Amino acid sequence: MHSGRKQDDGERYRAIMETAARLICERGYEGTSMQEIAAACRMTKAGLYHHVQNKEQLLFDIMSYGMSAFEQDVLDKVAPMPDPVERLRECMRLNIHLVTGGCSKEVIIILHEHATLTGEARSFIDQRKKRYVRFLEDSFAEAVRTGRIRPVQPTVAAFSFLGMVLWIYKWFQPDGRLSATQVADEMVDLLFTGLVAPGSAASPLLSLVAPKSVEGMS
Amino acid sequence: MHSGRKQDDGERYRAIMETAARLICERGYEGTSMQEIAAACRMTKAGLYHHVQNKEQLLFDIMSYGMSAFEQDVLDKVAPMPDPVERLRECMRLNIHLVTGGCSKEVIIILHEHATLTGEARSFIDQRKKRYVRFLEDSFAEAVRTGRIRPVQPTVAAFSFLGMVLWIYKWFQPDGRLSATQVADEMVDLLFTGLVAPGSAASPLLSLVAPKSVEGMS
Repeated sequence: MHSGRKQDDGERYRAIMETAARLICERGYEGTSMQEIAAACRMTKAGLYHHVQNKEQLLFDIMSYGMSAFEQDVLDKVAPMPDPVERLRECMRLNIHLVTGGCSKEVIIILHEHATLTGEARSFIDQRKKRYVRFLEDSFAEAVRTGRIRPVQPTVAAFSFLGMVLWIYKWFQPDGRLSATQVADEMVDLLFTGLVAPGSAASPLLSLVAPKSVEGMS
Repeated sequence: MHSGRKQDDGERYRAIMETAARLICERGYEGTSMQEIAAACRMTKAGLYHHVQNKEQLLFDIMSYGMSAFEQDVLDKVAPMPDPVERLRECMRLNIHLVTGGCSKEVIIILHEHATLTGEARSFIDQRKKRYVRFLEDSFAEAVRTGRIRPVQPTVAAFSFLGMVLWIYKWFQPDGRLSATQVADEMVDLLFTGLVAPGSAASPLLSLVAPKSVEGMS
């Protein structure tokens, strides 16, 4: 009985988070009141507070849920891949599908409300975000070190990757001219095809196309 | 006398916009009250309303100011350049300097408060943004058509460009390890060096590195 009750509470809380995420995504955190969240959940405000400590806790839980979905569907899947370029390409592809798919509202909230949380809650989310940035920087650095791509600055490459992928929520339309798969294929091609060093640093390709970048290549 | 008075009013209004932009950038539009803007301007709320019709008008004017700065410092400078790749490279460089430089708070507000304006004000700003997207799409399409770059989907290329450049406001620190010029040089290299077709579509480079992309290239 007790665990059944707990499960019901858990399901109820997921449903509240889902509804709150939809509202916050549409109207912003400041523009959404607990009263409105309660009404959208067909609850009284007092009933809502039975499940939710406060609005900031709800925002933190929505962001944590989004980060967990990202870690499970993207990071954990690609982190074990041995080749850094294949790892980065697959990571971009999976992250694009996360942004264009079911978790897009949690992703939007993580991005848009980045400065809304305070204190420990904010630094907890920030640390999970930083883990992703470091993963990308490390993978780009490894790809350069092993001669798999021409030399790039890993931090700029990591944030370029993130900018391309995360900006998608601003322009992509699920029912638009371009499918999520097309966007993913095109973006992976845009960023990686030109970076991949074809076998050797002395390739005529590199001296022809990127004379400056060859400097410092082993 | 009359034109002197008008000039004073204009200067005063610029100072109000500057202060309001700083507050809105820090706290968000919803999180900033007219009372707080007045206090930061060392004015009474009634005094502020002598210069400002309402908060939405102030937001619109800040965004218009940011768009004008962008058009003057970036778009108008690069639009006449005959070569589409040089045009895009220079456009990325100038836009990065705008985002990392003095106009960053207006840029952040344009990006962050994109859904705050309503009605005509919103569609006016949206049209100016769309003009930039079209300019980028047209330039990428021209670069493909004239064989200056390997085939890419112009819309995905345009939004990848924008994502890379506009995401910078989220991570760049003016006093950090990387200078604005370094970021600009690295990003231009990341996106364009690998795209530039070296002379001919039959180049061994293209068949080696990007077999899929050669399809449909004239």
